[in-house]
Parts: sequence; C-alpha cells; structure tokens
Amino acid sequence: MFTGLSAFPLTPLVKGEIDEQRFAALIESLAASGVNSIGALGSTGSYAYLTRKQRLAATTLAVRAAGEIPVMTSIGSVNADEVMRLAEDAQQAGVRGLLMAPLSYQPLTADEVFRLYERVTNELSVPLCIYDNPATSGFEFTDELLVALSHLHHIGSVKLGVFPADPVEAAARVARLKSTLAEGVTVGISGDGQAAAGLVAGCDVWYSVLAGLFPQVCLRLTQAAVRGDAEETGRLNRGLEPLWVYFRRHGSLRVIATVAELMGSVTAPCLPFPLQTLTGDARDALRTTLEQLPLNRV
Amino acid sequence: MFTGLSAFPLTPLVKGEIDEQRFAALIESLAASGVNSIGALGSTGSYAYLTRKQRLAATTLAVRAAGEIPVMTSIGSVNADEVMRLAEDAQQAGVRGLLMAPLSYQPLTADEVFRLYERVTNELSVPLCIYDNPATSGFEFTDELLVALSHLHHIGSVKLGVFPADPVEAAARVARLKSTLAEGVTVGISGDGQAAAGLVAGCDVWYSVLAGLFPQVCLRLTQAAVRGDAEETGRLNRGLEPLWVYFRRHGSLRVIATVAELMGSVTAPCLPFPLQTLTGDARDALRTTLEQLPLNRV
Repeated sequence: MFTGLSAFPLTPLVKGEIDEQRFAALIESLAASGVNSIGALGSTGSYAYLTRKQRLAATTLAVRAAGEIPVMTSIGSVNADEVMRLAEDAQQAGVRGLLMAPLSYQPLTADEVFRLYERVTNELSVPLCIYDNPATSGFEFTDELLVALSHLHHIGSVKLGVFPADPVEAAARVARLKSTLAEGVTVGISGDGQAAAGLVAGCDVWYSVLAGLFPQVCLRLTQAAVRGDAEETGRLNRGLEPLWVYFRRHGSLRVIATVAELMGSVTAPCLPFPLQTLTGDARDALRTTLEQLPLNRV
Repeated sequence: MFTGLSAFPLTPLVKGEIDEQRFAALIESLAASGVNSIGALGSTGSYAYLTRKQRLAATTLAVRAAGEIPVMTSIGSVNADEVMRLAEDAQQAGVRGLLMAPLSYQPLTADEVFRLYERVTNELSVPLCIYDNPATSGFEFTDELLVALSHLHHIGSVKLGVFPADPVEAAARVARLKSTLAEGVTVGISGDGQAAAGLVAGCDVWYSVLAGLFPQVCLRLTQAAVRGDAEETGRLNRGLEPLWVYFRRHGSLRVIATVAELMGSVTAPCLPFPLQTLTGDARDALRTTLEQLPLNRV
C-alpha cells in the first residue's frame, strides 16, 4: 500500500470535537478519486492533538468511508505505552498500515529511537511507515538509522522529510536508500513542495497534503513522474508553486485548512486550538491565488 | 514563590508507574533542605510523559510531602483542553503555582502562543510561570513576547531557557526584562550550567535540576549570588562544571537520573521509555566524576 499517491486529509474539528460528517465526506471523495491509499490522522489530520478515543473514532470512520482503498493512521505519542494502545486500536479498526514519528518531549538519541521502533514493531500485525518529520518531532533521522530500522519486523516504508534540493544529490540519495533498505521497504517523499523532485529522483510514493483536498492534480503529477515524464511532472509542479510558497511560509496545515474553510469543505475554525488558519490580507491573497491555480482542471 | 531556589525533582518510574514512596522521599528531603519552592512535575519530573491521572496523583502526593514549602507543577499538553483540565486538577490538589511551556506538535506562531496563554491564564486562581524551553517545546520566545505575556492575569514569573553567554549582554538583558515585564513578575534562569551567570546577571530565581537531588550546594550558590558575592558564586559554579559538561552532552535529565540511580535514590531504570540513563563507560566516568564533586560538603 506504500506506493503511488497517498492522500492525507484534514480532520475537521468543531470546538475540539471531530466533525464526523465532513470528515467522512472528505474520505469518501478521496476513495472515489483513485488515490492509492489514505493517510487518515497524519500530521494534516492533527492526530497529535486528539485523544485516544477521538483517534479510534476517526480511524473507524475513515476505514468505513474508504471502502476498498487502504487506510493508514498515525500511532505517534510521547507516551510509549499509549503508542502500543493506539496501535492496537488502529489494527482493530481495520487499518492496513500505520505511521509513526518518534514523538518525544526530551530530544531523543538514535539509540532511543531504535529501541522505540523495535518495541512497537514487535507487536504489530500490519506494516508501519517510519515518519521522518523533524519540524514536528524534533528528531532528524540519518540514512544509517533508517536503514537499520528498515530491518525490523513490519517496516513497510520510510516517509522522508528533509530532502536534497540538488537533483543529482537527490537521485543519489534515493538510489542509495533503495539499495540498502530492507527488501520491500518503499521510499516516500513528503513536504509537497519537494514532492515532484522526490518522485523524479525515484521515490515510490508521495505522502501528500494537497491530495487530501485535491487528489486529481496530485494523481496527474504522480503518474507523470512514475512513467518517467519529467517534463510534464515539472510543468504540473510549476503550476502549483504559488501554493508551495504559502506552504513554506505558513506551514502546509494552516494553508490547506484555510483552503478547506474557503471552499466550505470544513467549518471555520477547523484546527485544534491554538492553531490558526490565515486571516486578513494573507487569507484574501490565498483566495486570489487559489482561483488562478489549476487545481480542478483536467 | 518565584524567587530564590526552586528545586525540580525527578519523578521516579518503575515500568511506567510512579514509584510513590521514592517520589515522596525526594520531596520530603527537599522540603527539609530549605529550598524556596519545589517544581514537582517539571521537565525533570517527566510531566509530559505521564497521564492526567498520574499527574494528579503525583501533584497531590508532592503537595502533601512538601508541607509548608510551596509546590508548583507543569500543566503543559499539546491538547489545549487537556491543559485546562490539568490546571484545574493541580489547583484542586493545592499547588501554589503553575508552569507552562507552549507544547505543540505543529510549530506555533507568536500569535498562537499568546492566544494559548491568554486562554489558560483567564481561568487560573494561582500564578503561572512562563516556561521557555526551546529544546523540548520547539518554540523560542522573544523578549517582546515575554513582556506582552507578562501583562496577562496571573503571570508570576518567566523561566528563561536561552541565555546570553556574555556577562555584559546577560546583565543588560535581565535589566531590560525587569524594567519592562509587568510589575511583580520575576525573572528566572534555567539550564543549570548557566544558572550562576543568570543569578549574577540579576535573575530572581534559579529553576534547578541539580537542586532536585542536591539542594545544599545549590542553596549555597544561590545565596552567594543573591548577596552579591560573585567570587564565591563563581567558585561554587566552577566546582560543579564537570557535572555541567555531562548535562550539556547528554541532557540534564539523563544525567541526574543516572546519578539518582547510582545513589540508590531511585530504582533503575527510572526514566520513561525510550529515554535511557547513561550506560557503560559514560556511566562509570560519571560515577568517578561524582566522587570528586563537592555535592554534599558544607
């Protein structure tokens, strides 16, 4: 399930409670779009802000709404015992994969991160994607550690966060990872603004924020990259660049949540307090930018 | 309560559960030592790794064991509703002050941090210390933001994390803060290796990891600084420098927990998984260093 396009939808909130109707509508629309998998409760799905009960309810709802499309969900928590409970919950709810970032309060050492993944994967029955996201977890994986972790049981993919800007270096890194990671472990790119570069460099999957709301344009980009059409991939990516500028400036979550509010896909405010969607001039400018983007055109 | 020496003890764990007997013994020993306050469930007390139920139990126990010495406790959580519940729990348990770092999964903006403190302090009945700790929270306060926050209701202190190494710059910063923070808000230093510098620069309080296990030497250092004896402050601090080297290299929590294990004050392993105390050569070297330190001498 860790190949192609994986869409990460928002979990719309109303005063801290999940807006189940709009969440189900988002998932159903993704399932109908042809994405390869759905990452319910990724970072974009605000997993880290939800209680265990809310995470179970959202996962159950997502699996049901997704039908045949495989769903993965995040089991990250600062509390390692809670991680085990979340993994159990998610598997009971019928997910086909899991995601885990090494959340911590105290910055972790590589040895501690290894112990965490070792303990967690020993108890799993579905594959787990290693979630590299230094901006949220505070931990930076080395490729050496990713390779060591890939040999644990049940590791299915690595979701890269930090990625070389230089295309030659990027291709070399992906090739090196693919030749050293355990067999069958796929390499994924995240951070939408670098997704085209990641796919062209040989990544197997795009873990995508934008696809959680606009799967079609992301599918076209992914398919162009997979068939080796670097020109079309570049053209589609350049068309999205104005949005990537917002993602870099405000964080992808605040931007995609603002877009969803503007479209009426969610009720404003949809983010967990104190996170804020864009307001004032920035919101107006984003609205104008959106109208000029090729998001829904074929 | 936010002046002088504030001691931050470990919360010793045994397989994820609080070792209540040893925790109470640590608190009782601090209360008898003459420290000005006790920060139960600070970063050193692993608050972020504990459940709400565990945090309430530990706070209740700490308040009882501390007797007349005021206790403060951390109410930080990624989930803002949980912060409100933790504040309510702590106040019911009888704390005299609260600590809060702006915990988040997504990096926060200054505006979001302001909204968080505004909402929380609106509901309090005891003073709150703003907890600046970029290494754990991922957020860096500017002095401008600290000053703005200090004018909210119930702000009692700021606990500085990042601090200038240059003494002139340090004194200028503390003087500037003291003249611009709201009246009655004290300035505290944390990061034990820079505590002497902070106190000499004019900070009102040392939020201390070492004092959680060795209050006497920290009291002597604090008292020397408060009476303006920079020479004695420097002498005492130089005596502790070998320990600060360990703090910087491994993080103060891993080191103080190792020391507590070596002394038998807690059962090994005492930290929340996957955090590890020092092992092998590093542990042996720390044991040797400890024997040479003036920790218990008068």
